[in-house]
Amino acid sequence: MRDLPLSKVYQLLEPGPVVLLTTAAKGRANVMTMSWHMMVEFEPPLVACVVSSANHSFAALKATKECVIAVPALELASKVAEVGNCSGCDVNKFETFGLTPTPAGRVAAPLIADCFANLECKVVDTRLVRSYNLFILEVLKAWSDPAQKQPKTIHHHGYGRFVVDGETIKLKSKMR
Amino acid sequence: MRDLPLSKVYQLLEPGPVVLLTTAAKGRANVMTMSWHMMVEFEPPLVACVVSSANHSFAALKATKECVIAVPALELASKVAEVGNCSGCDVNKFETFGLTPTPAGRVAAPLIADCFANLECKVVDTRLVRSYNLFILEVLKAWSDPAQKQPKTIHHHGYGRFVVDGETIKLKSKMR
Repeated sequence: MRDLPLSKVYQLLEPGPVVLLTTAAKGRANVMTMSWHMMVEFEPPLVACVVSSANHSFAALKATKECVIAVPALELASKVAEVGNCSGCDVNKFETFGLTPTPAGRVAAPLIADCFANLECKVVDTRLVRSYNLFILEVLKAWSDPAQKQPKTIHHHGYGRFVVDGETIKLKSKMR
Repeated sequence: MRDLPLSKVYQLLEPGPVVLLTTAAKGRANVMTMSWHMMVEFEPPLVACVVSSANHSFAALKATKECVIAVPALELASKVAEVGNCSGCDVNKFETFGLTPTPAGRVAAPLIADCFANLECKVVDTRLVRSYNLFILEVLKAWSDPAQKQPKTIHHHGYGRFVVDGETIKLKSKMR
């Protein structure tokens, strides 16, 4: 994997793909599936996300204030759904589903080598955790896998229905 | 347009489509393009969004604490981009781009009849507005247009590049 400029992070998350979120607490790594996230600032990139307190990852995220957001392409869709259907409380999901944890540079949570992008994050604001389980993350370092060309992402519509990226259109834009 | 159950709102926003956000202040309606939003709670549906203080809509949203999130299908993509490229400070965007404002039931901000879904919202938490321009909205009432069958949404990847919904896949899920 190679460095991805932090200024490009929003291009990964703004389209709303299903992502994986890794944490590591007490020497044990875990991974969950997440769709409730959004960009909050371009650079340094800030990301908001909701991690339910019912998720095993919640306590690790709250305690360590670190995580990795990994973006899976279509090829990982079935694993992504399986990761979302079980709890790290019961199983080692990396082993069970054959995902490849890789050491990150700035956080204890692992990267997922199988994903086409990985974002190392620290929690920078917890004011809305109590009310909504909403965390504000800062992306410290970003990685992309040059071997995965034009990855298609998946988008969750509820009840296990996912829409896959289709055609790309280019429209005149003043947006960054 | 007909009622959409509030329990189904997350299925519209969780996939991360580009949406339009309408406001009305001092008798004048406005509309902006928005991609930084996420679900926060299923029911009653809570939505987080970032509306930059550089946007003309920011002051209206902050003052009136009401808005409508309208979800456009692919057919509106060029209008959606144009709405995002100009300011309500300068133009009446509804007239300029031929979008059809329609009275909402619970808020002063208008629905957009051209969109396949409309969500009437009130601001319920402003704690993160000062730091990040991040608003928490509650969806009070939701509408869908039964005439628009299987609408495809668009997802912004930056610089006017949009990815359109492609194929749908169904995977086993315990997610709601």
